[in-house]
Amino acid sequence: MTRIQSVRTFDVRFPTHETLAGSDAMNPDPDYSAAYLRLDTEIGSGHGFTFTIGRGNDIQVAAIEAVARLIADADVDGLLADMGDTWRRLVHDSQLRWLGPEKGVVHMAIGAVVNALWDLRAKRAGQPLWLHLAGLSPDELVSLVDFRYLTDALTPDEALDILKTAEPTRSERIAALQAEGYPGYTTGPGWLGYSDELLDRLCREAVQDGFQQVKLKVGADLDSDKRRLKIARAAVGDDIRIAVDANQRWDVGTAIDWIRALEPYDLAWVEEPTSPDDILGHATIARAVAPIKVATGEHAANRVIFKQLLQAEALGVVQIDATRVAGVNENIAILLLASKFGVPVAPHGGGVGLCQAVRHLAFFDYAAVSRQLDGRMIEYVDHLHENFVEPLEFRRGRYVAPHTPGASTEMRAESLERYRFHG
Amino acid sequence: MTRIQSVRTFDVRFPTHETLAGSDAMNPDPDYSAAYLRLDTEIGSGHGFTFTIGRGNDIQVAAIEAVARLIADADVDGLLADMGDTWRRLVHDSQLRWLGPEKGVVHMAIGAVVNALWDLRAKRAGQPLWLHLAGLSPDELVSLVDFRYLTDALTPDEALDILKTAEPTRSERIAALQAEGYPGYTTGPGWLGYSDELLDRLCREAVQDGFQQVKLKVGADLDSDKRRLKIARAAVGDDIRIAVDANQRWDVGTAIDWIRALEPYDLAWVEEPTSPDDILGHATIARAVAPIKVATGEHAANRVIFKQLLQAEALGVVQIDATRVAGVNENIAILLLASKFGVPVAPHGGGVGLCQAVRHLAFFDYAAVSRQLDGRMIEYVDHLHENFVEPLEFRRGRYVAPHTPGASTEMRAESLERYRFHG
Repeated sequence: MTRIQSVRTFDVRFPTHETLAGSDAMNPDPDYSAAYLRLDTEIGSGHGFTFTIGRGNDIQVAAIEAVARLIADADVDGLLADMGDTWRRLVHDSQLRWLGPEKGVVHMAIGAVVNALWDLRAKRAGQPLWLHLAGLSPDELVSLVDFRYLTDALTPDEALDILKTAEPTRSERIAALQAEGYPGYTTGPGWLGYSDELLDRLCREAVQDGFQQVKLKVGADLDSDKRRLKIARAAVGDDIRIAVDANQRWDVGTAIDWIRALEPYDLAWVEEPTSPDDILGHATIARAVAPIKVATGEHAANRVIFKQLLQAEALGVVQIDATRVAGVNENIAILLLASKFGVPVAPHGGGVGLCQAVRHLAFFDYAAVSRQLDGRMIEYVDHLHENFVEPLEFRRGRYVAPHTPGASTEMRAESLERYRFHG
Repeated sequence: MTRIQSVRTFDVRFPTHETLAGSDAMNPDPDYSAAYLRLDTEIGSGHGFTFTIGRGNDIQVAAIEAVARLIADADVDGLLADMGDTWRRLVHDSQLRWLGPEKGVVHMAIGAVVNALWDLRAKRAGQPLWLHLAGLSPDELVSLVDFRYLTDALTPDEALDILKTAEPTRSERIAALQAEGYPGYTTGPGWLGYSDELLDRLCREAVQDGFQQVKLKVGADLDSDKRRLKIARAAVGDDIRIAVDANQRWDVGTAIDWIRALEPYDLAWVEEPTSPDDILGHATIARAVAPIKVATGEHAANRVIFKQLLQAEALGVVQIDATRVAGVNENIAILLLASKFGVPVAPHGGGVGLCQAVRHLAFFDYAAVSRQLDGRMIEYVDHLHENFVEPLEFRRGRYVAPHTPGASTEMRAESLERYRFHG
């Protein structure tokens, strides 16, 4: 029996409010933070975290500790050998489930624990996580997914079909990913707290750096949004896509009016127009602003929300997040749902380590699930990666394929110490 | 300036798993618990709590402490004078909001703090909470509600109209409530872990006690459900309503098949057939099983979920919960939504103190919002009320109108001490 030797948690907070990087219409002064977990076992260490924006990171740490207690005495080999069962054991714990169910602090804490176990499992396999997942059989992958509440939209057999269709050509796509990487887009120029001059300069730099899409935060003031979009469009030219992100600022009616007013600037998508819980609202907005696409997902609580957004034809872009849902397993469910409904996935990046972690899921998606790159990009924010032991590599607008074993979620000991929060 | 002198929290857990009272298809062994808050100020004390079922109650306590820190230095008179602003101050805190948004542990913690402030305010007014709320003007009541994300279904003007329509006749309904109380229904006979003999006996006692409706837990085994419903129907006769509660056990397709198989037993409603997040799923089920009504709400995370359940015509019964959403203010929003859509409200009771707290909202609803009693009942579970300083009174199947000042949420010091959880 292989034991967990220690569970260590860290409340890590970076004082990002000082620079206004990360500022948007709903989050004026975030302190990018991680509720971080290190699992030490006899066969190695696994690292996972939840991204938060400051206050409350201590609550998230308490939740991770509570979830980790559920597996304190478990056999690590057993946990890793059947990660589908491990996921259900954590998510279906009836007492903890009451605190969601399957949403918010507890669900994200399960994600941190599940992701730490995947980090450990991929390291033991000697593979980067995406390649490890892309090497599992369709049956193994289906066994990772909890189909509870999904079967009216996606059955295990349908999921198996999607994976089997992709299987014969996986190796070609893996080779392409290793040679060419995966496209990214940048949110760097568009933070709401930035001056017009900085916006202009960063947009021009983004084009020079090879980006095919930039994203601007909007939603605080319509005239200001128009002015900033005009600056951005002039800076990037007609061939580079511009997306906008309202960070849940609007009611349904306001969203429709506001987005229509921004139509002249040729928007690639509008992100988080309203409450992430409002499936019917997103559907109403999507119908009203077509052909502009609606995107959401970084705050979508679980696979049941994604299922409905897809059933309601509310989404043109599915934005998975590495630490919002209950980890790798649930994101595989969401990738399968997106593939079933034929909607492209453009993962949420930024924060602390989200780009590090989520790119594994996008690489896996292309290799083993969707087989598509059209309209797909991973958000890229060049920020805080230096705090990770193996910072991501990014070249000419593209993510380089991760090539070291694990999930790329281990933070540097110096960073954990330096930015550790002491009340 | 009136200060908060101390914020004290208690992790209180009752060993209810020993009796299987509270057992259902998803929650086999709950330990009914309260993450409890006592706010002491220069003008008195306020008491609030979140109900949980055991593990994780410590996380909930940590969250309540984090939320209470947001008002640690505030002027209590100011907080109480504008409870709408106080609610927004807590719910819109951008950093804590990230951990939901507006759902799960943090949102419930805000509920505990908001409810403690309402307890204090009602005590200072010398009135039971329901009567205090029923004495506010329509404008004051509208100011308590955050209409963000609601305006596509309910505008402030529409809410004002509902309240103004009820205003001239409030006093008649208040007098009726004080004279006759408000109907309850009982879940006491129907816990899943009870024997057939106990079910039969408790059903007969319920009729003798004056109840017009009983509720049975279902969803673990169809044959067993049929057998138990047959016993219950024989015990209560044809004139007493029987509702069933699946506690989220089913997928959409299973729910439809299962409920149809139970049709011969003449069901008043089917409660929580599937995931509380699945608005579209509830709508599909409701269409398929009509005229049996679908009920849900005790796990509905916030007003945005209720809004959509009503927009989608998914609900025949709205089940508000005193500690799931962000307190009294958000429940007023939900009562207004239910009234707008013409759907009856039957509050969720049970747990620890839920009946104590939620009856104030039902009494207020009848007096000042819906003006209706048809098909409306508050769930009644005769359990753990003795741990409260002012236990509710219940006679002949009806809740007696609360008549002492406050929200009835104060627990006895002996109970807090005796059932305090020590890791």
